[in-house]
Amino acid sequence: MAKSRDGWQWTRREGVKAGLPCIGVINPSQSVKNLDKVFDIVIIGAGYTGLTAARDLTVAGFQTLLLEGRDRVGGRTWSSEIDGYQFELGGAWVHWFQPHVYREISRYGMKAELVFSPDYTREKNYFTFVTEHGARKMSHQEEIELFSRALEKFANVDGNLGKSVVPLPFDQYSNETLNNYANMSVADRLEQIKNDLTDDERNAVSAVVLVAAVAPETIRRSWTFFVVLAIKLECGQSAFALRFFQEALSSGRLSYSFNTVITRVDSSSRDIVKVLSRDGLTFRAKRVICTAPLNVLDKVRFHPALSQAKLDAIRHKHVNQCTKLHAEIKDPEMRSWGGVTYPNNRLLLGAADGTTPSGNTHCVFFGCSESHLHAEEEIEETLKAVNAFAEMEVERLVSHNWSKDQFAEGAWVWYQPGAEVKYLETLRERHGPILFANSDWADGGWRSFIDGAIQSGTDAAFTVKNELQGAQRESHL
Amino acid sequence: MAKSRDGWQWTRREGVKAGLPCIGVINPSQSVKNLDKVFDIVIIGAGYTGLTAARDLTVAGFQTLLLEGRDRVGGRTWSSEIDGYQFELGGAWVHWFQPHVYREISRYGMKAELVFSPDYTREKNYFTFVTEHGARKMSHQEEIELFSRALEKFANVDGNLGKSVVPLPFDQYSNETLNNYANMSVADRLEQIKNDLTDDERNAVSAVVLVAAVAPETIRRSWTFFVVLAIKLECGQSAFALRFFQEALSSGRLSYSFNTVITRVDSSSRDIVKVLSRDGLTFRAKRVICTAPLNVLDKVRFHPALSQAKLDAIRHKHVNQCTKLHAEIKDPEMRSWGGVTYPNNRLLLGAADGTTPSGNTHCVFFGCSESHLHAEEEIEETLKAVNAFAEMEVERLVSHNWSKDQFAEGAWVWYQPGAEVKYLETLRERHGPILFANSDWADGGWRSFIDGAIQSGTDAAFTVKNELQGAQRESHL
Repeated sequence: MAKSRDGWQWTRREGVKAGLPCIGVINPSQSVKNLDKVFDIVIIGAGYTGLTAARDLTVAGFQTLLLEGRDRVGGRTWSSEIDGYQFELGGAWVHWFQPHVYREISRYGMKAELVFSPDYTREKNYFTFVTEHGARKMSHQEEIELFSRALEKFANVDGNLGKSVVPLPFDQYSNETLNNYANMSVADRLEQIKNDLTDDERNAVSAVVLVAAVAPETIRRSWTFFVVLAIKLECGQSAFALRFFQEALSSGRLSYSFNTVITRVDSSSRDIVKVLSRDGLTFRAKRVICTAPLNVLDKVRFHPALSQAKLDAIRHKHVNQCTKLHAEIKDPEMRSWGGVTYPNNRLLLGAADGTTPSGNTHCVFFGCSESHLHAEEEIEETLKAVNAFAEMEVERLVSHNWSKDQFAEGAWVWYQPGAEVKYLETLRERHGPILFANSDWADGGWRSFIDGAIQSGTDAAFTVKNELQGAQRESHL
Repeated sequence: MAKSRDGWQWTRREGVKAGLPCIGVINPSQSVKNLDKVFDIVIIGAGYTGLTAARDLTVAGFQTLLLEGRDRVGGRTWSSEIDGYQFELGGAWVHWFQPHVYREISRYGMKAELVFSPDYTREKNYFTFVTEHGARKMSHQEEIELFSRALEKFANVDGNLGKSVVPLPFDQYSNETLNNYANMSVADRLEQIKNDLTDDERNAVSAVVLVAAVAPETIRRSWTFFVVLAIKLECGQSAFALRFFQEALSSGRLSYSFNTVITRVDSSSRDIVKVLSRDGLTFRAKRVICTAPLNVLDKVRFHPALSQAKLDAIRHKHVNQCTKLHAEIKDPEMRSWGGVTYPNNRLLLGAADGTTPSGNTHCVFFGCSESHLHAEEEIEETLKAVNAFAEMEVERLVSHNWSKDQFAEGAWVWYQPGAEVKYLETLRERHGPILFANSDWADGGWRSFIDGAIQSGTDAAFTVKNELQGAQRESHL
């Protein structure tokens, strides 16, 4: 299998090795033949947003060029198969309550790939809770009750579990009272309810909220969020992402260029937008869909310049620098384990997520922004953080450092208090023939998820299709 | 606005008048010019299944002919605007938990059309419960508690609210223990739990189950079902259905013929399927997608004949002959009302659903198969049934008799006990170049809903697109 430059793995024997096998690597990486060709659309970025837009537009008859800085499809969502097991390096979990991603899973005939992650049948069937008061074992039932109680107190800002503040989950800002909460930080909210929280509840809600970044403005979503964190694709996300790419290819209208870093987009001429790569190549199209994530949008220069409001939003960035780390544990009985360590550890959440063909338990761990861990640079520190949950013999670590990734500079989007109210509309605005689409500012209920990416790509493609179709009809008159 | 032959309304002054205004009426009804043309695809039926397939296939570049017996799009889902108010004659309610329909609402930019039906702000803010013990007023809170308790007892076949029997809602037959319940009737289940039900609970669950036909095999869905029955499109379903049709038209590859009743499909020649209308017209295509509902599939003859298993399934039909009836009530304060009458009335459920521009309250009523009401033939009986809930001055009745509709012969699909296990797979089987797609046998979680129709159309179009695309590539070699 082809190897991507992205990600890394560590084993005791071989140490840290950069790069991971991935079926989403596209080889050869270029299919563009004629650099003078004016495409209907250039799409910057082959994450789910770009893939969905490329699929929809090529199927609808438009000559489309897909540009991507990486060597693979999927963007911040991709999987690596190592010794017959799928590790999800970025976005992973999906659910039938997420309309856009589920529609695609269904359409591609992949419903049978959906698997529940939890397995409560093995010997070590418990939850470890490590706080300033020491380590405790709890049953999963006790765990669920504690975390539900704590998160309910956190989310219940209106005595109605948030439903009065956010009546429509897909339209979070429809209600002006939301502004009372959108400017509030997690710390503010914890301060507000501190007398109502036991130490355990405070630690539970802190750990979850710091990782999941479930802020007060998305309170209604938090419940669904935890339902969602249980179901993944057995085949791995990269197999799913490839389906979009292959469908676009099969139309005969997709051109692509991977390993192509875009630095400049020039829309100063009336009809043709020029897209320039770091290597000095120029691509041309009638429309451009830019899907670069928020934290790296400032690396693309636009001429004429973007509006001051948009530049402010881009400069402000988002603040999620969470860590996601996979560990292969030499103990099949750990398959039913889960745990939280807070405070005093640099990984906060851990849970068994599968069994490898060799019989090891695969556990996934999350760390938060404030105690950020560059795991590949601090292996001993990382192993210590894993063992703070429980004693574990770690055979392998697998991860992707999203914070140091030049095309992401962060994990899934989460905004500072007030930033969504202030910047979301601006981020969605187009710049003449250039559309901006990304889950980071998706306007459905699943911003920041794979679902939001597919929605953004769907919407951008629909807009462009209608415009270019109209233009085609006019030119035939 | 154009008037459809479908549906009827009654007013005291004018009595019963057949036909209702509908923006979904297509005028002129034919666009086919050349009867010798061999289309890529002929689609029989312009309900959501056929519309979705036509949209996807025309956008993907295929010459598609859409045939429909009615004068309008939408099939068993359509709305009529009367004096500025949208009445939903068939399918109506939608939800963001329904992935396929919600994806389309989102893509067409119609999220702002979603409105909550309940309004608890008016004077008559209560629930009327009329049983063999007489009539009572209850608060909506008491209503919700009673019905939740009763339905929970009904659905809780496994001590786990059905989740052990149906772990994956989109794949109801993945678990063999389901067969213990799939062959069980509503009456069987009520008998099983009769000692656990109060009279009120028995009446509550009976009324709901007889109308909603929430059978034990779909227990997990029943909860979502009631969430779903609260949200509709303010613009009316026909405006939504038209979007699919218009997008297909805008591709330049859609031909259509409404008022065209198909009686015969001949696939005996190797490459070209012939589709014959009652009026003696013959249409030709490489593939046919037949979306006729289960209860009228026997009106189309196939040559060569369908398999015996499929013929058995078609002859077996489904058993839902529920009535849906709209009433305009001259009392704005009824807007917060709801009620159930069971047994001893021919309408079982009623609820306020909106306020007309003239200030009347619009209430929607449901009757069940076993005490079936042909409302337009028994107006006084119908008014009596409405007034059995509470005294109401009815200004207008609006309805569609689906049982006597030649293209439906029933309401939304519901199978007799055991029929789903026995017939679903057969109904989904193709017959050579002919595909059968309909919400009646959709294999997602929302069979029988609009969502299942869109899913079926999406899937059929995807299959046909892949086949014909492959054939095109081969012919270019």
